[in-house]
Amino acid sequence: MAPVEVKENDVCVKMLAAPINPSDINRIEGVYPVRPQPPAVGGYEGVGEVYAVGSAVKVLSPGDRVIPFPPSFGTWQSYIVKDQSVWNKIHQETPIEYAATVSVNPLTAFAMLQDFVRLNPGDTIVQNGATSIVGQCIIQLALTQGVHSINIIRDRPGADGVKENLRKLGADQVYTESQLEVKNIKDMLGGLPEPVLGFNCVGGNAASLVLKFMRNGGTMVTYGGMSKKPVTVSTSSFIFKDLSLRGFWLQKLMSTDKASECRNMIDELLYLMHDGKIKYEMELVPFDDFHSALDTALGKQGSRPKQVLIY
Amino acid sequence: MAPVEVKENDVCVKMLAAPINPSDINRIEGVYPVRPQPPAVGGYEGVGEVYAVGSAVKVLSPGDRVIPFPPSFGTWQSYIVKDQSVWNKIHQETPIEYAATVSVNPLTAFAMLQDFVRLNPGDTIVQNGATSIVGQCIIQLALTQGVHSINIIRDRPGADGVKENLRKLGADQVYTESQLEVKNIKDMLGGLPEPVLGFNCVGGNAASLVLKFMRNGGTMVTYGGMSKKPVTVSTSSFIFKDLSLRGFWLQKLMSTDKASECRNMIDELLYLMHDGKIKYEMELVPFDDFHSALDTALGKQGSRPKQVLIY
Repeated sequence: MAPVEVKENDVCVKMLAAPINPSDINRIEGVYPVRPQPPAVGGYEGVGEVYAVGSAVKVLSPGDRVIPFPPSFGTWQSYIVKDQSVWNKIHQETPIEYAATVSVNPLTAFAMLQDFVRLNPGDTIVQNGATSIVGQCIIQLALTQGVHSINIIRDRPGADGVKENLRKLGADQVYTESQLEVKNIKDMLGGLPEPVLGFNCVGGNAASLVLKFMRNGGTMVTYGGMSKKPVTVSTSSFIFKDLSLRGFWLQKLMSTDKASECRNMIDELLYLMHDGKIKYEMELVPFDDFHSALDTALGKQGSRPKQVLIY
Repeated sequence: MAPVEVKENDVCVKMLAAPINPSDINRIEGVYPVRPQPPAVGGYEGVGEVYAVGSAVKVLSPGDRVIPFPPSFGTWQSYIVKDQSVWNKIHQETPIEYAATVSVNPLTAFAMLQDFVRLNPGDTIVQNGATSIVGQCIIQLALTQGVHSINIIRDRPGADGVKENLRKLGADQVYTESQLEVKNIKDMLGGLPEPVLGFNCVGGNAASLVLKFMRNGGTMVTYGGMSKKPVTVSTSSFIFKDLSLRGFWLQKLMSTDKASECRNMIDELLYLMHDGKIKYEMELVPFDDFHSALDTALGKQGSRPKQVLIY
């Protein structure tokens, strides 16, 4: 390829780290309705350091730590040249693996907790897929708001250790799906109020379990479908229980006027991360090991932490 | 039973007509979560004539035509004594079979068209169960607001005649379920904009067909489940299509502060009925034939018009 010219409003950023998210893989698979023109570079978020700036760029200087926001295509490359408006300066001391991963999963958690129901301290939320990074962020963000969480995980070997880890993050209740095959779900609330808000990233039975917990008039938000099974809802859930079912897609939110609110959420998240109030496990992988990191991200090594490429 | 005393604020009404609604039968079957203390009298709406009033009653006089509003238990009896606040005077010239049936099905249609999405002239709604009285009222009410309707009916012998009848009421498009097993549902819009609002009273495949028609960001309201099958929704309907799924239950609405708005909707409906702008088929049955009317309402005689008991 020919060298890229740095125009007067452009900034050239040397990338430092970028994750492999499930949504990156979905994009490459063509699952998403919005697609870039091929050939295209993968990767939707990351962190870099300003390497060079165009003549009209005032607010950024070489050495600044930046993230692309709104997140955008092409972070899986060593150097990126884009208009200065794309780059947002962040504090140098933010750990790079958190800076690289804040804009997709943690932001999804933050935005979903704000967008649908006004939560008050003492309220309860319920979610499935609680071990995902979005799930872990929901637990920790709820905790910072005084909101309780009921968490549903897959039945799996070592479930007790997984539960213990989620409790350490602040989860009030953690159940495997099979534990919830009970007649009276209220017995599983452990004294918490019935959830006013639920999150579903699994579908199938795991979504039904979220609905089972919800209080009358509650809202369940679907943001993923890991089981590849649809959501099935009884007529009485709608009519007598007055449940609302909604969906969330970060990429769509970014195209609305809420994108600027999201910028503030990112700042808040980076602050909480710096403070140790939001954490999740990641595996830092040199960029040269991209292929094995991709295999790991695709689940070929079993359950493993999120893969973050270090350039 | 001992004679009922007419206290100073009571009104004794001689019932003239009351329908047998599917919801009346559901209540007797115990399907509904709210139940009267047995022994109880069935029937949830109807029309009557004031027979006697208590000494403190000023606004009603013997001979006045009244309906109970909010609708309440016990209209399947010859005389009813209740507090004056329960009885709403209506115009004498309203046909009694419409006065007797306005408070449940037509009101459901009216409230659902108002409660969820702000409709503008030129918008489209889509519904299944379009031959039900609620369905027929939705078509006619939409028409009065300049809103188009796409209507889905069961495959059945004589479907062409049913379609023709619905078109005469104002339906823009009418399809049987099997006609909609097509790859591109947009071909079936017939030039109408994609529906912003959908109504589901069937569940199962018929609910999926409503969802298939909906435009991005649309809302589907479930108010019945005639097939006894749940609603099944793909993950992408929530995430990429941003559909909202809600429920409607008239009895719950009546317990909120929207009940007084409903009183105005009843007046508007009675006006439209008097004007011939809302009509539906009914079968008037003498009260003595209650048992055969009940069998008919239960579907034992096949598809038949709504049974309205005349006292």
